[in-house]
Amino acid sequence: MAKLVECIPNFSCSKEKDEAAYNALVEVAKSVPGCTLFDAQTDGNHNRCVFTMIGAPEAVEEVAFQLAKKAAEVIDMTKHVGEHSRMGATDVIPFVPTMGVTVEECVEITKRLGQRMWDELKIPSFLYEDSASAPHRRNLAACRKGQFEGMPEKLLQEEWAPDFGERKIHPTAGITAIGARMPLVAFNVNLATSDVEIAKKIAKVIRGSSGGFRSCKAMGFMLEDRGIAQVSMNMVNYEDTPLNVVYEMIKSLAERYGTYIVGSEVVGLTPAKALLDCAEHYLKLENFDAHNQVMEYHLVGME
Amino acid sequence: MAKLVECIPNFSCSKEKDEAAYNALVEVAKSVPGCTLFDAQTDGNHNRCVFTMIGAPEAVEEVAFQLAKKAAEVIDMTKHVGEHSRMGATDVIPFVPTMGVTVEECVEITKRLGQRMWDELKIPSFLYEDSASAPHRRNLAACRKGQFEGMPEKLLQEEWAPDFGERKIHPTAGITAIGARMPLVAFNVNLATSDVEIAKKIAKVIRGSSGGFRSCKAMGFMLEDRGIAQVSMNMVNYEDTPLNVVYEMIKSLAERYGTYIVGSEVVGLTPAKALLDCAEHYLKLENFDAHNQVMEYHLVGME
Repeated sequence: MAKLVECIPNFSCSKEKDEAAYNALVEVAKSVPGCTLFDAQTDGNHNRCVFTMIGAPEAVEEVAFQLAKKAAEVIDMTKHVGEHSRMGATDVIPFVPTMGVTVEECVEITKRLGQRMWDELKIPSFLYEDSASAPHRRNLAACRKGQFEGMPEKLLQEEWAPDFGERKIHPTAGITAIGARMPLVAFNVNLATSDVEIAKKIAKVIRGSSGGFRSCKAMGFMLEDRGIAQVSMNMVNYEDTPLNVVYEMIKSLAERYGTYIVGSEVVGLTPAKALLDCAEHYLKLENFDAHNQVMEYHLVGME
Repeated sequence: MAKLVECIPNFSCSKEKDEAAYNALVEVAKSVPGCTLFDAQTDGNHNRCVFTMIGAPEAVEEVAFQLAKKAAEVIDMTKHVGEHSRMGATDVIPFVPTMGVTVEECVEITKRLGQRMWDELKIPSFLYEDSASAPHRRNLAACRKGQFEGMPEKLLQEEWAPDFGERKIHPTAGITAIGARMPLVAFNVNLATSDVEIAKKIAKVIRGSSGGFRSCKAMGFMLEDRGIAQVSMNMVNYEDTPLNVVYEMIKSLAERYGTYIVGSEVVGLTPAKALLDCAEHYLKLENFDAHNQVMEYHLVGME
């Protein structure tokens, strides 16, 4: 099986505001063999662009560094104006294990990258999400609070020393957040009731922040067009908290409130494994080794 | 999503008995860009080899023809001795849709290939499985009955004219069976009983040949080492007869006989879709488009 890592760096520039800078970054993103630029999105109002790259771990790590280097050359944060919160030319670099790689291996990538960005570029960094060195740093918004302009002062606070580098920002490139995280699965479950309070009560029971499943974020909503209530979830680690586990818990809670599940949905992309694990559960599969037995895993990276 | 077809041609020669012929075939199997030789198995007692190739439909079709051409050059069926039933230098060429391709598209490939093998090589062929022109030709064993030596006579029978070519074999290359079929999933379900008769009764209800699900073949066995009975199945078309459907039917029948399912197993490889469809069923997923929403489908064929 091929080893693949996804990297989704965010830069404080846009094609709309500075086409030369944007094009220079795109060129770098395509420059390392073994790493593919899947998608590039740019937003003029945010004055920000986001690349989605997938490739071999070493290739992705290298291209992330080269991008941070180029961004420091072409972006001057002292002149950046845009609606989106930001603290660096390369604002944030998430790494997500895609195939044949653990999140721990991605954490190692983030640490090497942070060290190298300091050593060679003098850009400091925070490690966030699964790379975080302390609980208060897991959340990206907490790291970025104060933004570029407030960072010099923030870095002097006891609890906000950078993970790599000294307590001062790069004068024009600022500071970067680097973090590893599992792929997120957006999973919603629809109930046969128009009572949104039931969905809210169920969400409260199942979400980690109020005592439920650690890797489940949940809210209760009304689907106005269908007149039914929905438990809307972000599953931030489907290995930690499987989809079938929250589904069965919701099923049980719905019954307790006199209703039932009418359907569910996965929004956008999901790794196959999040659903293969559900099939394994419901079919009571014994000794199933998805990465060896599911044909598609052998086809990725085929020459 | 990439388009991929699997082709598993069987040739009447082996590395053990004629290394030069075998090597010539391997060389041809690797010669067409866009088609990868995944596996090559050779058996001296059978005096037969089997290649597993995966690639773009056009590439696979081309390499299959080039292999049949080379096999006719290097194999003389009048001198072939081996334990395995056979009727041609290229004995059988199955095509299986792997990704982004329907079984109907594979049927078209088999028809073009059969026509071309006759036009350019004067090798006649039978179409079998989903390519078959009549029900009595679906089964490969029925097509091959009589083997190379009995074919001249068989082809003169009213119901056994080749699908392509005249009613006579190629003097040294014989005749070839060409067919499209869905990938097979070997799926077994274990019961909490030592009474093998229950597994046999359940198998009889669910298999297509005795009135059950059309694309399910099933037998009842005893797992001697575990002391439990097993319903052992070949699911020959998981879109036609989904795994979750036979699982639920077995669950219901087991209950009727006072037992229950303790587990199941998928033996060997399975396409992801056979299990993703089960997850979709059990999670009641609405509007789920696996080929667009499952990330791995986007990664296959990535440059």
